[in-house]
This record gives sequence, C-alpha cells and structure tokens, in this order.
Amino acid sequence: MTEQPLIETAALEAALQQFADERNWQRFHTPRNLMLALTGEVGELAEIFQWLTDEEVAQLADDPARFTHLQEEVADVLLYLVRLASVMKLDIDAAVRDKLVKNACKYPAPGTETQRI
Amino acid sequence: MTEQPLIETAALEAALQQFADERNWQRFHTPRNLMLALTGEVGELAEIFQWLTDEEVAQLADDPARFTHLQEEVADVLLYLVRLASVMKLDIDAAVRDKLVKNACKYPAPGTETQRI
Amino acid sequence: MTEQPLIETAALEAALQQFADERNWQRFHTPRNLMLALTGEVGELAEIFQWLTDEEVAQLADDPARFTHLQEEVADVLLYLVRLASVMKLDIDAAVRDKLVKNACKYPAPGTETQRI
Amino acid sequence: MTEQPLIETAALEAALQQFADERNWQRFHTPRNLMLALTGEVGELAEIFQWLTDEEVAQLADDPARFTHLQEEVADVLLYLVRLASVMKLDIDAAVRDKLVKNACKYPAPGTETQRI
Repeated sequence: MTEQPLIETAALEAALQQFADERNWQRFHTPRNLMLALTGEVGELAEIFQWLTDEEVAQLADDPARFTHLQEEVADVLLYLVRLASVMKLDIDAAVRDKLVKNACKYPAPGTETQRI
Repeated sequence: MTEQPLIETAALEAALQQFADERNWQRFHTPRNLMLALTGEVGELAEIFQWLTDEEVAQLADDPARFTHLQEEVADVLLYLVRLASVMKLDIDAAVRDKLVKNACKYPAPGTETQRI
Repeated sequence: MTEQPLIETAALEAALQQFADERNWQRFHTPRNLMLALTGEVGELAEIFQWLTDEEVAQLADDPARFTHLQEEVADVLLYLVRLASVMKLDIDAAVRDKLVKNACKYPAPGTETQRI
Repeated sequence: MTEQPLIETAALEAALQQFADERNWQRFHTPRNLMLALTGEVGELAEIFQWLTDEEVAQLADDPARFTHLQEEVADVLLYLVRLASVMKLDIDAAVRDKLVKNACKYPAPGTETQRI
C-alpha cells in the first residue's frame, strides 16, 4: 500500500463546516445527533432497494429520475458520515487505511497465505 | 462553489475493487448485499454512542482504545458506502456536489435570501 | 377489524420495566439512547442476511445454531422497540391498529375499490 | 418467570398475512426485502429524534400531530419486524423469553449474585 491518500475529504469537511457555520447549526451537530441523522439517511437509502430484485437494481441506472434519487441518498449518508467524523476530529483517510490493513490480515487473499509466515 | 472536487475516492474505489477481485468477492458485492452490510456497520457505529452522554462522547478521544474502535466503525461504514456507490457506477463527488447545492437552496443561509431574487 | 387487540405487550413491558428497575437502568433508558440501541440491534439482524441468497435464507431454519442467533437478534430489536414505546407512553396495540387502517386506505386490496366510492 | 406469554402477536401476524394475501404481496415479503424495509422504517423513526434534546423528546407527547407521527413510525417498525419473524416461522414470544433469560444471566441484578452460586 502506497503512502498516497486513499480518500481525500478535506474540501468536503470544510464545505460542511462552512454550511453549518452559516446557519448556526454547530449546536445541532453533536455526534449523537449526527449518528441519528445518519441512521435516518441510511433508512432512505435502504428504501430504494427494498422491493427490487437484483435485476431491477441493475436497471436502476437506466431511469434518470431514480438514479438521481439514488445519488441523493448516497450523498446524504456520506455527508452525515463525513460530518460525524469531522466533528469527532477523526482522520478519515487514516481510519480507512488502518481498516483495510486489518481487513487484509483478517481475510488474506488466496495465494498470499505463505506471506503470513 | 469551485470546480475543484469536494471528495476524491478513486484510489479507495480501486483498492476496494482489488480487494474484492483478489478474494473473488465480486459475486457477494451486489448492491442489496452491500446495503445490508452497510446497515450492519451503521449499527456497530451506533452502539458506540448508545449509552453515552454528550460529555462522555466528547471525552471519547481521550481513550485511545475506544477512539480506535470509533475509527474502525466509521471506516467500515465508509468502505461499504463507497463500495456500494462504486458498484452502482455512481460518481460520488458529483453526487455530493449536487446534494450540497440542493441543500443550500432548501436551507438558504441567513443573509443570503436577497441573493436568491 | 374487530375490537380484539392485535398485539399484547403489557407483560413484556412490565418485565422490561422490572429488568431496568432492578439494575437502576432507567437513567440509561432515554428515548434517544433506546433509539441508538435499537439501531445497533437492527444492524446485528441485518448482518445475518447480508451475504445470503434467498435460498440460503430459506435454509436458515435447518441450522439450529444460526436459527437461534436469528431468534436472539429479532428479540433484541423487539425488546428495544417495545421499551422505547413504553418509555414514550405509547399504546402499541392502538398504534398498530391505526397504522393498519391507514395502510389499508393507502393500498386498497383489489376488488375493494368499489367500496371506496 | 411465569409460563404466561410475555407478548402475543398471533392476531397481528394473521392480519399481516391476510393483508399480504389480499394484495398478492407474498412474493415481495422475502426476509431480505423485509429486512431492508425494516431498515427504512427504523430510519424514519430515528429522524423524529435526530435534532431533539431529551427535554424536547419528553414534550413530544404534548404535540398531538408529532405524537401521532411517532406512533406511526413505531408501528411501521413493529409491523415489518413481526412480518419478518412470521415469514421466518419464528416464535416471537419464545424468542423474547429466551433472550430475557440470557440477558438476566449476562447482567445479574444487584443483590441476586448469591442466587447464582
């Protein structure tokens, strides 16, 4: 794994901070509030998939209105997740890197087992 | 809003694709499966906050073991969310930008109303 | 719809109240805390289904250990949901009845449309 | 613990079965679909609490419109949870009883430790 970042969120974190500042919303953006808001958005994302077969999901991209709705809900989940991480002063890229290393150790790829010795 | 990206996920998306490829996990990574896995990780993140007061949450960063656990759960949610978006061939940065514009229209900042005329 | 209850939760609500009282847990059982705990348990329930096909889900009952795990997670979600409703002094049976009536109006059964005139 | 049921759901399970039968919705009510629908409703329930303080939550019951909304969302979560359990042929009361016994063993009440010897 290189030392290049895997994900860069600084500009988004700054935009969300500014958005909250301009509306005086910092007082609402406690971690527990953001966690509940994240849960709400995850629910809206799940609703998109709830009655669809895998085939119907694959065709979702062919329907611009529904694909836009999917984009919005993915964005909403991401916005609250990044905001939560930001408020907790958590380094998102470092968290992601560390977790991928742990996942690679937990689930070694076939053919890499000998490297674990 | 500038034309600079707000979030860059290409390297992470590539890393997740490679991780899945090496383990032959693409067949598991259907959008509906990833949605359920995302829900599972959101649950693990919520558990961290469930019995804590806002004051206790603020002190979470002082406890390295618990902060590491928080980082892991934030990362897990993010990994599944990015993977889901990736599998749906969704442009995450574009989705985030569009949503922030919509949010700004829906919730105009005080003092910016005149600009809307 | 008859006037018989559709669901009876009084004994369970009393048992949960006693369980909390004996452990002095009332102070933890705020609605927001219970909401986060409910989210945590929903995540654990979702994990059971995340990588399974519909066929594998149908065979879950044939594996006693896994079926017991499913029972535990369903129970955990239900316990927190009933406790949340109880703490909010909400009449669960009345809530369920009202919602079923609303659902029946929203989604009339085929062959019942003429009754709506 | 007595042998009386803690929760009785037979009438509700029958009502939900009839509701699905009348609309030919059984084909949609797979466990995985119901799990995603449950997640969606949990999200809607979480939204009610997301920006409220504990004090504001305590006053929710004073606002009939908002309390009705709370009742609806609690009911929606419960309906999908009971339907999921029903489709999985799971005995809800038995599941709840078993889990309460396990919880009592895991978290013995103060003053009951001697009984464990």
